[in-house]
Amino acid sequence: MEITRRDLIKVSAATAVLGAFGEASVAFDDPLPSWNKGPAKDAILAFVKDTTEKSSSKYVEPKDRVATFDQDGTLWTEHPVYTQAMFAFHRLGVMAPQHPDWKSTEPFKSVLAGDHEAMGKFTEKDWMEIIAVTHAGMGTEEFLALVKPWITTAKAPRFDRLYTDLVFQPMLEVMKYLREKGFKTYIVTGGGQEFVRSYSDRIYGIPPEQVVGSSIVTRFDNSSGKPVLMREPKPFFVDDGPGKAIGINMFIGKRPYAAFGNTAGDQQMLEWTQAGDGARLMMLVLHDDAQREYAYGPARGLPDTHVGTFSEALLTQADKSGWNVISMKNDWKRIFAFDK
Amino acid sequence: MEITRRDLIKVSAATAVLGAFGEASVAFDDPLPSWNKGPAKDAILAFVKDTTEKSSSKYVEPKDRVATFDQDGTLWTEHPVYTQAMFAFHRLGVMAPQHPDWKSTEPFKSVLAGDHEAMGKFTEKDWMEIIAVTHAGMGTEEFLALVKPWITTAKAPRFDRLYTDLVFQPMLEVMKYLREKGFKTYIVTGGGQEFVRSYSDRIYGIPPEQVVGSSIVTRFDNSSGKPVLMREPKPFFVDDGPGKAIGINMFIGKRPYAAFGNTAGDQQMLEWTQAGDGARLMMLVLHDDAQREYAYGPARGLPDTHVGTFSEALLTQADKSGWNVISMKNDWKRIFAFDK
Repeated sequence: MEITRRDLIKVSAATAVLGAFGEASVAFDDPLPSWNKGPAKDAILAFVKDTTEKSSSKYVEPKDRVATFDQDGTLWTEHPVYTQAMFAFHRLGVMAPQHPDWKSTEPFKSVLAGDHEAMGKFTEKDWMEIIAVTHAGMGTEEFLALVKPWITTAKAPRFDRLYTDLVFQPMLEVMKYLREKGFKTYIVTGGGQEFVRSYSDRIYGIPPEQVVGSSIVTRFDNSSGKPVLMREPKPFFVDDGPGKAIGINMFIGKRPYAAFGNTAGDQQMLEWTQAGDGARLMMLVLHDDAQREYAYGPARGLPDTHVGTFSEALLTQADKSGWNVISMKNDWKRIFAFDK
Repeated sequence: MEITRRDLIKVSAATAVLGAFGEASVAFDDPLPSWNKGPAKDAILAFVKDTTEKSSSKYVEPKDRVATFDQDGTLWTEHPVYTQAMFAFHRLGVMAPQHPDWKSTEPFKSVLAGDHEAMGKFTEKDWMEIIAVTHAGMGTEEFLALVKPWITTAKAPRFDRLYTDLVFQPMLEVMKYLREKGFKTYIVTGGGQEFVRSYSDRIYGIPPEQVVGSSIVTRFDNSSGKPVLMREPKPFFVDDGPGKAIGINMFIGKRPYAAFGNTAGDQQMLEWTQAGDGARLMMLVLHDDAQREYAYGPARGLPDTHVGTFSEALLTQADKSGWNVISMKNDWKRIFAFDK
């Protein structure tokens, strides 16, 4: 058989088509396109394979597939201060004209003066006083009516972007990938449960019932004939440190197979996760990218900023326990969706 | 055209087939076969139609479809005493040989002597002492290891059936029907969250994360290198009365569209449900069937037994508020799956 020029064109066209298809298919198959190849990405892919492939000895029934995520510093930026603290400061500014005494009374004085050094030294009692006037003394619906317009418009100064734009694209991909593989994804945050629920579904695809967080006491009040849950200036549950393991058991009643955090406040959540049988994935985000986001430790010689601390002790425990440390600088191709 | 005998046979066969089909189809279409026709059944069917048919002005998005169910007396039998109390009494009996002082110390003395009159007068402090020795002082896993063998074997004396067989078949049908229509069903119980979770999925098809209940304090303890959540003899959250509205907001973060209860402990849950917009379904089970189950009020002249009280005041509120009262005697064709 004679090979004509026409045959060669056909073959070459077919190769081109197959080639393009092949490439497209590789890109399409990567569930974590914002992750660079490396041990962190490999650990996630191996974990999913181990727990979801029927032939795996570590296969996990879909109903037991639970993955938990800290929020501040794990799912979105927590520097220079937590977004919820920014909301509280905003509320203090709005309310200040009705409270002339705040100009001379701590902790309000320092907030209104923008005295970051003084604010850095606030005690738990100081914070509770700020929470009391900005987060309590109203019904849950009234509170949400204050949060929603703020969270949909307020911008983080350094980026001139909505706070909700400062979500880490690689983590969105992990959550989406886990959900596609049958995992139920939960936020387990030291932040206020009601606050985070106001945007969690829209931003993370996580519905209110999958947000475990800190809360203040609420009181059922039906004195007006229309029941209200009044938010009281009194802490009820602190979902941080040991509270994260406690909160997971109380709200979910199942042990996670995967847990993601970034500080010592997530340590017990990771310990609780790891103490289960089979394949478990424990990961900690290290903020080592001052250029694209922030850099703070003090682990690995990064600056100690006292917000979202990643200590040497935590790094030592991670190494000892086989927890995966995610380097934002090296492991993440993109940090934010708006990054090129 | 002449009609032959053969034609007539054909017609009659077709009619028979259609007839049988028609009947089968009616039976098949009834999602609540254990319910007699009446206002209670009609209310459920109308509610589902209103909230799930796209053309309805009261249509509810699937993600917002939440239905909450009290457990004791609403989903299963609570007489002569709550099943969880029976478990506590069983534990006291098992532990008694190691505690000879209990023979002369209240509240243990009365329980060990089976003195129902004295037990009927137990204070909250008495109950907390019983909870402390039977439900606390151990890790969550150790506790579940005590509950599971008991709940899978212990029998209710009057029926000589497992406690978990005393589930109300009509309520199982309502839960199944609501789930088929996209509702997420939750148990919201005054009972112990950890206790109920040990069997909720198996008995009701409700997974642990959809059980809201009362709880005692748990403490994270990693002193042995294997983390444990230690159950402490101290109440943490009382999911009863106003606590049910508070618990629903805390655990679910969404207002139910339907709520089922049977006592004043469910009143605020129903009020909270009804205070939302659109179609809402509030139902109370009245135990008025001494023959097939139990009869107690004191509403409608039924005996006042002090367990699962349905008061005149609650009945008045139900009438005033348009809540549906389910008469077990009249509305339920079958009560238990084992009923003929």
